[in-house]
Amino acid sequence: MNHPGLWGGAALALGLAGAAHAGEGMWMPQQLPLIAKDLKNAGLQLDPAKLTQLTEFPMGAVISLGGCTASFVSPQGLVVTNHHCAYGSIQYNSSAQRDLLKKGFLAASLADELPAAPGSRIYVTVDVKDVSPQVLDGKTLALNGKARVDAIEAKQKALTAACEKDAGHRCQVASFYGGLQYQLIKQIEIRDVRLVHAPALGVGLFGGDTDNWMWPRHTGDYSFYRAYVGPDGKPADFHAANKPFEPKHFLKLASKPLNEGDFVMVTGYPGRTNRHRLPAELDFAFAWEQPSRIQLMGEQLALIKAETAGRRDAEIALADRVAGIANYYKNMQGQQASYEGSDILARKTQAFAELKAWVQADAARRARYGADIAQVESLLAQRQAITRAELLLSFVTPRLLSTADTLLENAHQQALPDAQRKPGFQARDARRLLQSMEVLDKRYDEQVDKRLAVHFLAKYLAQPAEQLNKALLAALGLQAGMDEAAIKTRLDALYAGSQLAQKDARMAWLQRDVAAFKASDDSFIQAAVATFEDEQARENRDKELGGQIARAYAKTMQAMIDYRASKGEAVYPDANSTLRVAFGQVLGRKGAVDGSDWHAFTTLRGIQAKHKGEGEFDAPAEQLAAIKARKFDRYGVASLDSVPVNFLATLDTTGGNSGSPVLNERAELVGLLFDGTLDSVIDSWDFDAKKSRSICLDARYMLWQMKVVDKAERLLKEMGAQ
Amino acid sequence: MNHPGLWGGAALALGLAGAAHAGEGMWMPQQLPLIAKDLKNAGLQLDPAKLTQLTEFPMGAVISLGGCTASFVSPQGLVVTNHHCAYGSIQYNSSAQRDLLKKGFLAASLADELPAAPGSRIYVTVDVKDVSPQVLDGKTLALNGKARVDAIEAKQKALTAACEKDAGHRCQVASFYGGLQYQLIKQIEIRDVRLVHAPALGVGLFGGDTDNWMWPRHTGDYSFYRAYVGPDGKPADFHAANKPFEPKHFLKLASKPLNEGDFVMVTGYPGRTNRHRLPAELDFAFAWEQPSRIQLMGEQLALIKAETAGRRDAEIALADRVAGIANYYKNMQGQQASYEGSDILARKTQAFAELKAWVQADAARRARYGADIAQVESLLAQRQAITRAELLLSFVTPRLLSTADTLLENAHQQALPDAQRKPGFQARDARRLLQSMEVLDKRYDEQVDKRLAVHFLAKYLAQPAEQLNKALLAALGLQAGMDEAAIKTRLDALYAGSQLAQKDARMAWLQRDVAAFKASDDSFIQAAVATFEDEQARENRDKELGGQIARAYAKTMQAMIDYRASKGEAVYPDANSTLRVAFGQVLGRKGAVDGSDWHAFTTLRGIQAKHKGEGEFDAPAEQLAAIKARKFDRYGVASLDSVPVNFLATLDTTGGNSGSPVLNERAELVGLLFDGTLDSVIDSWDFDAKKSRSICLDARYMLWQMKVVDKAERLLKEMGAQ
Repeated sequence: MNHPGLWGGAALALGLAGAAHAGEGMWMPQQLPLIAKDLKNAGLQLDPAKLTQLTEFPMGAVISLGGCTASFVSPQGLVVTNHHCAYGSIQYNSSAQRDLLKKGFLAASLADELPAAPGSRIYVTVDVKDVSPQVLDGKTLALNGKARVDAIEAKQKALTAACEKDAGHRCQVASFYGGLQYQLIKQIEIRDVRLVHAPALGVGLFGGDTDNWMWPRHTGDYSFYRAYVGPDGKPADFHAANKPFEPKHFLKLASKPLNEGDFVMVTGYPGRTNRHRLPAELDFAFAWEQPSRIQLMGEQLALIKAETAGRRDAEIALADRVAGIANYYKNMQGQQASYEGSDILARKTQAFAELKAWVQADAARRARYGADIAQVESLLAQRQAITRAELLLSFVTPRLLSTADTLLENAHQQALPDAQRKPGFQARDARRLLQSMEVLDKRYDEQVDKRLAVHFLAKYLAQPAEQLNKALLAALGLQAGMDEAAIKTRLDALYAGSQLAQKDARMAWLQRDVAAFKASDDSFIQAAVATFEDEQARENRDKELGGQIARAYAKTMQAMIDYRASKGEAVYPDANSTLRVAFGQVLGRKGAVDGSDWHAFTTLRGIQAKHKGEGEFDAPAEQLAAIKARKFDRYGVASLDSVPVNFLATLDTTGGNSGSPVLNERAELVGLLFDGTLDSVIDSWDFDAKKSRSICLDARYMLWQMKVVDKAERLLKEMGAQ
Repeated sequence: MNHPGLWGGAALALGLAGAAHAGEGMWMPQQLPLIAKDLKNAGLQLDPAKLTQLTEFPMGAVISLGGCTASFVSPQGLVVTNHHCAYGSIQYNSSAQRDLLKKGFLAASLADELPAAPGSRIYVTVDVKDVSPQVLDGKTLALNGKARVDAIEAKQKALTAACEKDAGHRCQVASFYGGLQYQLIKQIEIRDVRLVHAPALGVGLFGGDTDNWMWPRHTGDYSFYRAYVGPDGKPADFHAANKPFEPKHFLKLASKPLNEGDFVMVTGYPGRTNRHRLPAELDFAFAWEQPSRIQLMGEQLALIKAETAGRRDAEIALADRVAGIANYYKNMQGQQASYEGSDILARKTQAFAELKAWVQADAARRARYGADIAQVESLLAQRQAITRAELLLSFVTPRLLSTADTLLENAHQQALPDAQRKPGFQARDARRLLQSMEVLDKRYDEQVDKRLAVHFLAKYLAQPAEQLNKALLAALGLQAGMDEAAIKTRLDALYAGSQLAQKDARMAWLQRDVAAFKASDDSFIQAAVATFEDEQARENRDKELGGQIARAYAKTMQAMIDYRASKGEAVYPDANSTLRVAFGQVLGRKGAVDGSDWHAFTTLRGIQAKHKGEGEFDAPAEQLAAIKARKFDRYGVASLDSVPVNFLATLDTTGGNSGSPVLNERAELVGLLFDGTLDSVIDSWDFDAKKSRSICLDARYMLWQMKVVDKAERLLKEMGAQ
């Protein structure tokens, strides 16, 4: 594995040491030798160098689900992740008649394990390579605008294609530091993923939205998948003859009790942070974009709730989407609450002014960065103007229209040689596209979809006529100022005139050419054809601007890294869904909330206390009986006089880390990362080492529930639980 | 003042000392010398004997509002109490156009102070006398059943009438220990009560139902009344020429800061506790009556909310009632939560078994108590059977029908000599009756009333026909099994056929005789006439049984007191809305909630953190600006880096204590008692010294809000605030 040049040198190591003590940092595995001493001092008993070896223990056991993290916990490919990460698959297998979401699921044997939702994947990272010199060669560096974007995309596709010649693997070229650096990541892609076990909703989602992002917390946020491969041991599609994947490494359960103050680390795939964003981006996000999204998401949630009330099938169909929106909604509200009245913008503005002054103070630096730094903010302002004008567009589009758009784009792309197709439409993407078309059946409800479209279109059409997208209006037969009744009449006709709600119809369109689309009388296909040109034009506009921004931005980041290096400070890259390691300790928080301190652990007592017998706090009767009878089994902790349920830790994590194994100093499994506290979500933009806490499921609670309440003996034995 | 015999003797004092340390006890003022040493040890600097003198400082400053407590805080009769105690008067003065509830109210001068809701009273207790020997004379003690009830009632009326010969006073004979002891209480009754100041709803009810009974808490639960009297200084009806009452004593603001661990005491009128109830009563309450009431109240709340949605006038009209139901609802749920899984019933059962064994072990005790103790539980079971059969009846009655019932009963009673009339219908009650008829105008909404009646009647009529009240059904033209539609048709006719929703019509009926009622064609008056006989029969049935129970119960209580005395333990009486004193200290709580500790104080920071800009957490913009600007004025506390808002104290309090002044060791005002924590509401039945916490408004928050935000300079000056 290449060690990226940015991280060499004693000065950087010095800076890192300071940061590491504070608990901040989502470290790339290859950076860990730089903080080996801090890891040792913090309590790690393993050789830190081990953590850089992705195919060795323990990193070899940590896997990605694409959006969530998971880990192998048995030699037969048993995978543990969060309940909320497996939620889509539980939902997919549920119906009003067989409500696995509500009641939970426990496969009695391998044969009873259920296919996960279409498109479910397990990715095992096997290699990471720095490909910055290949991607950003002299020719690319000389380009700007759309040409630059296209050149980088071509390089990425070529590197990916070469890497994926190794069958059964998925590769990607990830961008770090806003396009300053690129890494080629190679992963085994397991396509036969099965649902093995999920606790009842009253355990796995105990507390619901009310407790989401909250402490004290009592959520049993775990579920189990299993990875299956073909008889030859290679990744394969679902087939009865497939057999469990045998991972080279898997995590073992902790051999010692976890206590407050103990060392913990988390390995996983954090999705996105914005810690290096410029003040103009911060200001736009908090002053306009996030408040707008909060408003619109709140409306979405209320409408979906109203339209699914009393229809359990529709409720199940929308459950995954509602959970996603609600989670994002509360997260953004938490960010806004922390941001408002804070000095974050002032500090970032000050830091950026210092950077600009540092660049200006030296002729060589001026020459190297001056033009790009001077330009980057006005370029960002252009993109912000587009966001302002078009944000609502992403809310108004009926699901079947966006489906038609995708199908038409696919027909256009299929007419090109594979290497020239856009990402998402190459041969390597065909299966995902197919599955996204399949899964719609289980996630779509016309009544809800139409209600949302009517509501947001009415909002959209109430804007000044000159701001509206003429192509879209013409395609849908809409006019500025139309009220909900008029829009609904129009949409009724459109929905009635389309077959795309039927799976067979969608599948058939995957095979047709552009001429067939143009000749179709399906209402949404027609609308897609009518808006295609406008969409391409807007895409090209975005690429042109994006290319300019990326170039200026990369230079700005380089200036920032150089400036920080000149002060002996290191810069770790923002999270980008690639494998990272964070470490910290189990720790409560004094004065966490006005009038209250937080303990490090919650216990079964809190489940009893919160239980309401309905809604979000509806613990299963068998669980309550076991708690009441004090059946703690081997999982009771004397000092707590109960079984620990969730715990707080000073771990730097974010969305995407969900399901990540929390490991002790021996790299044994002590829990699963599943959340952060609401006043920690601002960490996406600005880390506060004193306040930040991640919320983890204590493995002892999971094992207790599995043994004492759910009698999951087969799985416990497989994991080596005593 | 008489010192009741029960409290004499060193053995009792010894027992009391133990209890006093634990913070338990709502002491009658005359009991305080018995715990003088404990009070001194706890930190009281005042001579405890001072607290027994009701017309001296500080007791002379503590007053009752009938249901709430308050205190004089200026020489011009300025009264401070809770916002939720003045809520009815704020609501009464509010309309959708002039929304004092929402925006708050500050009278610019005396002339701007507004009449409180009709019937509002301020009671100043001036004397308490033990009248047990007079009430329970030999003749009465020989009686049983209704004859006993009537005899006691006659004695009570005679004592009250004699006491009230002193004009401007209100007297009552209160029962202690379940009818074992009686005290004659004499109070000045101030009838001209005016609203002086209430903060905005977003301060006075910040947190709403969500935070009710909760900690951490941030409610500015204070409002100001003023007592007015006639030009002669005597109580008088509202009149422009009236002038502020000049109390002999009033409370002064604290001259030193309040800290955790400090001594505090609370003087007030706790309403009702059930600590001496028998196990059969406890069991019935928690296994049947309270769960039934919770269910029914939940339905009431949901229906009122649905029927007032979008109608701000109706919402205001129902606000007081909704607040009352919601409060009781959450309290009862809290009681149930604490009770379920507890050992309370087992302990009470064990204690009662021990008492019975102690009685049986001695021939004299057997003779004295045996028969009554043996009988009391079967008598209680009879009353419980009636409650089971008739609980729903109290929910089904349209408000205008119960009004008609009261008017008809009044006509019957007015035909009797005053001394023979039932309590509530004597000359001394005329004004209250009149005002209850007046206030209905502001508290009634036909749509809501009808919806509630239809809903609960449908429930009632769904029961087996033989359980239903035939008189009521006949009077309303209803039949067993009728559905909501049929009931509604019938009620539409009844509501349309009555004039009672009009104030003039109600007032007129106060003057008419029974014959006029019988001749009336007003639908609800007719219904009242038709059900009158049945209601009288049920009332007499209840009196007969009640008299038997009271006799057996009083003997059982006497046995219990004697038994406890034999073990050196004292028994204080259950709360009964009479003046009491409790003392304790400011104290947080470790491990109060699973995963969390409670601090003793909350601060302004918590208001900022909880603020949502809508609904229950909607702090005024001016307040938020002052918090943000850290304008703490003299009310900031360095160790908190803020102004304290609410605090926790180990004070034994209950409903009725609301608005009670919290006093420091010098009897200076440091706060207002306004709530208890949800896991303390079970204290009504069973006090737990370790867990129980009262929630108090910190006077510094009130003064800060008045000075920095609401600019209530006139009142601050009047209270002597610097």
